Amino acid sequence: MDVVLGPHQYGKAEVRLVHVVRHGERHDLTDLTVGVALAGDLADTHLTGDNSKVLPTDSQKNTVYAFARQHGVGAIEDFGLRLARHFVESQPAVTRATVDIHEHAWGRQGPHSFARSGAETRTATVTVDGSDAVVVSGLTGMVLMNTTDSEFFGFVRDAYTTLPEAHDRILATAVDARWRHATSGSDDWAVSFGEARRHLVEAFVDTHSLSLQQTLHAMGQRVLENRPEITEVRMSLPNKHHFLVDLAPFGLDNPNEVFHAPDRPYGLIEGAVRRDDAPRWVESWWDV
Amino acid sequence: MDVVLGPHQYGKAEVRLVHVVRHGERHDLTDLTVGVALAGDLADTHLTGDNSKVLPTDSQKNTVYAFARQHGVGAIEDFGLRLARHFVESQPAVTRATVDIHEHAWGRQGPHSFARSGAETRTATVTVDGSDAVVVSGLTGMVLMNTTDSEFFGFVRDAYTTLPEAHDRILATAVDARWRHATSGSDDWAVSFGEARRHLVEAFVDTHSLSLQQTLHAMGQRVLENRPEITEVRMSLPNKHHFLVDLAPFGLDNPNEVFHAPDRPYGLIEGAVRRDDAPRWVESWWDV
Amino acid sequence: MDVVLGPHQYGKAEVRLVHVVRHGERHDLTDLTVGVALAGDLADTHLTGDNSKVLPTDSQKNTVYAFARQHGVGAIEDFGLRLARHFVESQPAVTRATVDIHEHAWGRQGPHSFARSGAETRTATVTVDGSDAVVVSGLTGMVLMNTTDSEFFGFVRDAYTTLPEAHDRILATAVDARWRHATSGSDDWAVSFGEARRHLVEAFVDTHSLSLQQTLHAMGQRVLENRPEITEVRMSLPNKHHFLVDLAPFGLDNPNEVFHAPDRPYGLIEGAVRRDDAPRWVESWWDV
Amino acid sequence: MDVVLGPHQYGKAEVRLVHVVRHGERHDLTDLTVGVALAGDLADTHLTGDNSKVLPTDSQKNTVYAFARQHGVGAIEDFGLRLARHFVESQPAVTRATVDIHEHAWGRQGPHSFARSGAETRTATVTVDGSDAVVVSGLTGMVLMNTTDSEFFGFVRDAYTTLPEAHDRILATAVDARWRHATSGSDDWAVSFGEARRHLVEAFVDTHSLSLQQTLHAMGQRVLENRPEITEVRMSLPNKHHFLVDLAPFGLDNPNEVFHAPDRPYGLIEGAVRRDDAPRWVESWWDV
Repeated sequence: MDVVLGPHQYGKAEVRLVHVVRHGERHDLTDLTVGVALAGDLADTHLTGDNSKVLPTDSQKNTVYAFARQHGVGAIEDFGLRLARHFVESQPAVTRATVDIHEHAWGRQGPHSFARSGAETRTATVTVDGSDAVVVSGLTGMVLMNTTDSEFFGFVRDAYTTLPEAHDRILATAVDARWRHATSGSDDWAVSFGEARRHLVEAFVDTHSLSLQQTLHAMGQRVLENRPEITEVRMSLPNKHHFLVDLAPFGLDNPNEVFHAPDRPYGLIEGAVRRDDAPRWVESWWDV
Repeated sequence: MDVVLGPHQYGKAEVRLVHVVRHGERHDLTDLTVGVALAGDLADTHLTGDNSKVLPTDSQKNTVYAFARQHGVGAIEDFGLRLARHFVESQPAVTRATVDIHEHAWGRQGPHSFARSGAETRTATVTVDGSDAVVVSGLTGMVLMNTTDSEFFGFVRDAYTTLPEAHDRILATAVDARWRHATSGSDDWAVSFGEARRHLVEAFVDTHSLSLQQTLHAMGQRVLENRPEITEVRMSLPNKHHFLVDLAPFGLDNPNEVFHAPDRPYGLIEGAVRRDDAPRWVESWWDV
Repeated sequence: MDVVLGPHQYGKAEVRLVHVVRHGERHDLTDLTVGVALAGDLADTHLTGDNSKVLPTDSQKNTVYAFARQHGVGAIEDFGLRLARHFVESQPAVTRATVDIHEHAWGRQGPHSFARSGAETRTATVTVDGSDAVVVSGLTGMVLMNTTDSEFFGFVRDAYTTLPEAHDRILATAVDARWRHATSGSDDWAVSFGEARRHLVEAFVDTHSLSLQQTLHAMGQRVLENRPEITEVRMSLPNKHHFLVDLAPFGLDNPNEVFHAPDRPYGLIEGAVRRDDAPRWVESWWDV
Repeated sequence: MDVVLGPHQYGKAEVRLVHVVRHGERHDLTDLTVGVALAGDLADTHLTGDNSKVLPTDSQKNTVYAFARQHGVGAIEDFGLRLARHFVESQPAVTRATVDIHEHAWGRQGPHSFARSGAETRTATVTVDGSDAVVVSGLTGMVLMNTTDSEFFGFVRDAYTTLPEAHDRILATAVDARWRHATSGSDDWAVSFGEARRHLVEAFVDTHSLSLQQTLHAMGQRVLENRPEITEVRMSLPNKHHFLVDLAPFGLDNPNEVFHAPDRPYGLIEGAVRRDDAPRWVESWWDV
């Protein structure tokens, strides 16, 4: 047998970029964490340490900063496209570039004053592979809770099942969602994101849930029915359990009022909702 | 020499309590992390393992949950007072109880639907020592930034100083503030908190800063000048540096537009602003 | 167009299991974090909330604990196989089960006393799909450093490149490695793991590195050349940069002695080394 | 009433320093996180933004790196003393300097190759106040477990107590300990640390525990009885609960074999053990 090189990529991860645009007294603020990953004709550096086709990850970082000055940032989808295309087009050895961006939200407190909005993050992952470009938008860290309108019953009972049926429980999750766009062009990525996010939240709120799987599907379906530019939605939804505390030993009832919220373990529900004609979406670059 | 027992306390930390109040379709939600610490005549358990004066930390946890059902939660200052007084009054061996509460904010999305508001947390630390009760309110994780109106010049230059003077820099911090109330009673802790928070933010926004120390002082002063119920404000303010990226190697200028934001190290500015007649505030229970 | 359900799975994540085996005074300790994910004929719960094919994630958690008592734990690969096979064989709707285990190491301090060994974790991911079983072993959080014998030169210099060539630098990484076994059976998973780990460390130590990619390849190659039971090694290696501090402003040289170690950004080098006849390894369940 | 400035200090936190000493082929490695805090005549910068007495935190960081080159690092107690004395002696406005150091352990893998040893960290906090110097050594993140020889019974049972008595339980904790030295000079800080650590571990292992408080006291006592250079030991010991899983629903017993380990809540036991003639130890700089 011979030992051979398998799939590989490299890049710079977690470049922290804060970009300020000054319109006189009034400033705009963009706060990003950017990752770059490049693939292509890179066997030499693995096999012999010949780096003649390797663009340093330090240069990739510099490019992120320089592009923010040269072209501005704008929508993270556009910033990602600009960067990814640059690496593929300017580096002969590079055939695929993936740019992954997390945008940290700030709320305005004054003309040039801001407050961080929280843990929720808008995301974009742009992959340019030869002349193809795929744009995936998303969000992570959006924590939602319904304090009623959630049930879970009629499930399988095997020898290890002790869970009682629930006809009124808390449903809480931290939404990690991403969705693929039909094309790599858009006049208004911000509107598309804002509307997709709104539909996710509203479907979570509106759905009388019989399982978190059902809620997941309703959320994806709502986005697809309203946003023609999106072809598929993928979600990972932890079921953040809230257990009713047994207060009977203290002579108290507990009519769905007092809950404890353990950190672990948690249910994890993952799934995709897509148009029947959606293109194949390869999740992992290892599998390309 | 003899070996003796020094200061000591014990309790339950990080009890996660989610409390739902149902007004028909419309629910209210409170999400707390509660810690209890008790001190008093507890030498025996240390010296011989005789636990006859030890209320288990498990019972302390149960009390948090039972009290939420029996008395509701309300303002975290009141919830803390109720718990701390209970432990001192009901346990002969306990002379001091400290209850520390973090409240995690949720925004309303529907009659019984909510979304987590972010990393900022409202805090209260209540200490009942004999018949005295001290209430400290506060917040942590409030990240603020001014993109201008901040300078730093005229500082000491020693042999290890290379920092250039700055006449226009970003000032960013994650506010960790706590403030002591003159009394342990209030008709409206929520208003007091909301106003104190507002003054902190507004002073940060309004101050043309010559140093983060000056901003810290302005923030505390603003609270004290407007809130007579507060006697002292203490703050820990990390100086979250934003460094201008040198784009000159790429033929670009950088007129305060593109910054990198390292995680570490960071400046750390800590200080108290108080009324001249404020009572002595002992920070650490080790020092009581 | 129609909206359809795409790939999906569900399960319980991060079940914390501590298992003690008592041989009289002498105890053995196993500390695991276990995740279970099931896939199969699960469309109903997504589409209508009909849970009649859904084994609750709570039952999956119970199974982990009960199996530890019924069968013991043993090697995590065997424990994962036992669990995964159970779910596929006992649940008609389940066609694929993945069990992911992290083992937290403890060192012995006495017959029944232990100390946690650190952040490095042994891992196993077992996937049973119908009658096929794939076992992937690995480790994560192993932080290695060479303080010399590392160079990086001869790389591409584009318009954004400022990095100087390095002929003596620190090379540091946090190894995240996983390797696929040729078969799902083994007489001694512990020996296989220990030897694979040893070869990874020794190859890192022995390789005079011209790039982290070259080191990655050497590490994988070393494992494959010595362990016939392993068909492919995959690694994600952050390049944990250590930058020489410029001490010239203080009249000091710095002959590779004083470094600062930023957290972010970091290079990220990822790749596989495999036998030329290794079976196709699908990284993500989304891509099955 | 007047608003006045209360206690205050400032400095640079979390300076990451990696120091390599080369003895030919064989290198030694020291990996530190260093914090500096200065106090003194610093009212002006708070009140008016006049920084003429403020040594920038950037200069403090530079000093850490320069001193590593000029004087080497050596024991972290000595490195802290050297830095703290420098700031007090060279800055007229500075009357007190505190240097806090965490040392991250690495094990040797070759002449110039190392592997991180884990989460346990050796610590030193040095405070120079005028001509006084106080040295506190310690460790944090040392996770210990006894799988038997721990009981908890005879405790108070109030209306909220449901905990059963335990005559054979797991006792686990993450030791956060610090101890004050009688003097600020030592020929061998490393021996003192190593022996103090050894006594802590051995007392934990040897003590048949009736409460974690008793174990805490035994640990501190053991150190003081063996190390005359140490006057007081302070510890914060989380009681990392391990709960027996109820397997009865599955027809299984559980003779102290299968445990689940929740993250929160946890007991928190804190206390000091000291010589009867130990000097007063002020825990918090706010309380000086």
